[in-house]
Amino acid sequence: VTRFEHGADSADKGEYRHFMLKEIYEQPKVIKATMEGRVTKTRVLEQALGTEAANLLENVRHVQIIACGTSYHAGMVARYWIEELAGVACSVEVASEFRYRKHVIQQDTLFLCISQSGETADTLAALRQAKKAGFRAALAICNVPGSSLVRESDLVIMTQAGPEIGVASTKAFTTQLTALLIFTLALARHNGLPEEQEAEIIEALHLVPGQVSDVLALDGEIAEMSKAFMDKNHSLFLGRGSQFPVALEGALKLKEISYIHAEAYPAGELKHGPLALVDSEMPVVTVAPNNDLVEKLKSNLEEVRARGGELFVFADRKADVKAEDGIHVMQIPSVHPITAPIVYTVPLQLLSYHVAVLKGTDVDQPRNLAKSVTVE
Amino acid sequence: VTRFEHGADSADKGEYRHFMLKEIYEQPKVIKATMEGRVTKTRVLEQALGTEAANLLENVRHVQIIACGTSYHAGMVARYWIEELAGVACSVEVASEFRYRKHVIQQDTLFLCISQSGETADTLAALRQAKKAGFRAALAICNVPGSSLVRESDLVIMTQAGPEIGVASTKAFTTQLTALLIFTLALARHNGLPEEQEAEIIEALHLVPGQVSDVLALDGEIAEMSKAFMDKNHSLFLGRGSQFPVALEGALKLKEISYIHAEAYPAGELKHGPLALVDSEMPVVTVAPNNDLVEKLKSNLEEVRARGGELFVFADRKADVKAEDGIHVMQIPSVHPITAPIVYTVPLQLLSYHVAVLKGTDVDQPRNLAKSVTVE
Repeated sequence: VTRFEHGADSADKGEYRHFMLKEIYEQPKVIKATMEGRVTKTRVLEQALGTEAANLLENVRHVQIIACGTSYHAGMVARYWIEELAGVACSVEVASEFRYRKHVIQQDTLFLCISQSGETADTLAALRQAKKAGFRAALAICNVPGSSLVRESDLVIMTQAGPEIGVASTKAFTTQLTALLIFTLALARHNGLPEEQEAEIIEALHLVPGQVSDVLALDGEIAEMSKAFMDKNHSLFLGRGSQFPVALEGALKLKEISYIHAEAYPAGELKHGPLALVDSEMPVVTVAPNNDLVEKLKSNLEEVRARGGELFVFADRKADVKAEDGIHVMQIPSVHPITAPIVYTVPLQLLSYHVAVLKGTDVDQPRNLAKSVTVE
Repeated sequence: VTRFEHGADSADKGEYRHFMLKEIYEQPKVIKATMEGRVTKTRVLEQALGTEAANLLENVRHVQIIACGTSYHAGMVARYWIEELAGVACSVEVASEFRYRKHVIQQDTLFLCISQSGETADTLAALRQAKKAGFRAALAICNVPGSSLVRESDLVIMTQAGPEIGVASTKAFTTQLTALLIFTLALARHNGLPEEQEAEIIEALHLVPGQVSDVLALDGEIAEMSKAFMDKNHSLFLGRGSQFPVALEGALKLKEISYIHAEAYPAGELKHGPLALVDSEMPVVTVAPNNDLVEKLKSNLEEVRARGGELFVFADRKADVKAEDGIHVMQIPSVHPITAPIVYTVPLQLLSYHVAVLKGTDVDQPRNLAKSVTVE
């Protein structure tokens, strides 16, 4: 059913040991490709989202995002953006839950489906069901031209990731985020986002490919760090705000390819249960960019450290998180708080990759998993 | 700050080995007490929710639930009920996330906080912040009379759980669910729920204390089952629909008191990642009542079994889930699909309890955790 309109060379690992590593390294290029033609230096080109975009985005009062797996995490990040920048209420739900319950579709709801393949069975079923129930329009974020999802949606933003061969999604996720941020800004313009703020964020987005390259340059250090996870069976990933879904995605990667039981929590929930699990055998990974939440996160880190947990912190150079006994800090270039989830995803991808390589698992074809879940 | 207006004997373990076990066994009584005076045989007594209830519930278009930990799971169950029975859109969010992000409060939103102690710092902070932002009314579901949450809300439904001493919440959760279902029916009446359907659900609710007693009678069998978890480090809990939060709560209990890394997933997400973790060392617990989703769940179970995972299924007697090699089935009395989350919570509480006792942990005072998180 799926067809790829990409050059044949993309299905070649080239100099890389695994497709996953190649795809991680392609991110600066494909993030840029996903921006291409859709943004100027300071503005989103709304008409590039489709001739009907302006009409369909006007008067949207609510956004319902539906997705599965990694795409669901992209949707969760977008929810933070949409409510903050566009001031439009946003709900996110996994497709298999949404389609089997009696849900409410609010008035003037935009239905937004995210799927790399465009053939994810539960997502397509949710879209078809919602069409009957009535909503304002259906927007798709998808990587495969001509897929069912693309054909059945009113508006489409294609991620220009190229074919993704590794089962664990990497470049599809960061290009989904890129597309979702562009969409958010288009929606926000209909809801009074000042031109200067749009310009500030677009300028920040133009910096992302370079920032991702800077993170890729940390590959050797991250490979070194990954040794600490090799003989561990568990890990906890913490984040706050739009970095919570980044923590979820980081934990999912580790699960998928290294078979380490990694679980993510919003950092504020730590004391409500998962702290009981923390001991020296449970490394705790945290994404702590330099924003309003970093002070809160530091206090969470102290709780973990006090219980003997070993900490691995990916922190903004300016965040003043200091390495000390049991606290390993990987300094990440300073990034804008809005684009931070895209950039912080990358070191967690590299971490999972190197742990899996050390453990000797089949990185590109992890056990039990298929690339696209086209059956229920 | 908190004071308990309950008899002194409640703080005595009596014949029970632990407070947690006593509190599990008190559930038939306290669920009944939470219904007392609030429902007739067939109707919710709306005025029992407060003289202003009818006025405040009229024209509610959206419910925003805020809570932490176990109370958050109760809120997640309520979301399924509120959208299905009242047809009112409902969002649920952990307090520490809600309060630190720029969120949208929709028009005519009822703000619903759930907290056993009524002193949970993040939940109170979210309430105070939301009051400034403007919403229709604040409803509290709380167990401690005179707590800050109770004093600062417009409407209050007290759970009549009595003092809960065990750090891992049990009877507070099931009485929260009882209160939330009563609230849902009151709201649903303002939104056209037919009288017969209200009667059907209230009649089902009257059966719950007896059904919980029937489940408690399975204690010996569950203790036997718990032996399979004693030497395990991981577990996966699966559920669909309103049983997904029950799976989350079951996993949280096992984490909190037995320090086994248990994680819950909506069953439909299994193929999108966590299936990679499943092997013979990862017992999978599933709640499968006899509703529309049981056929779907059976196919998920087959996937797990095919990967060597050992399955522990809590299933409705009528659900036709058969025990076989590697599939352990605990048959649960038939219950109404709406009240099923209350009843199915109880065997998972007992399972965690017995695993913890076998492991010799401090059941009532698990490491690292406090009863009420009154600081951030």
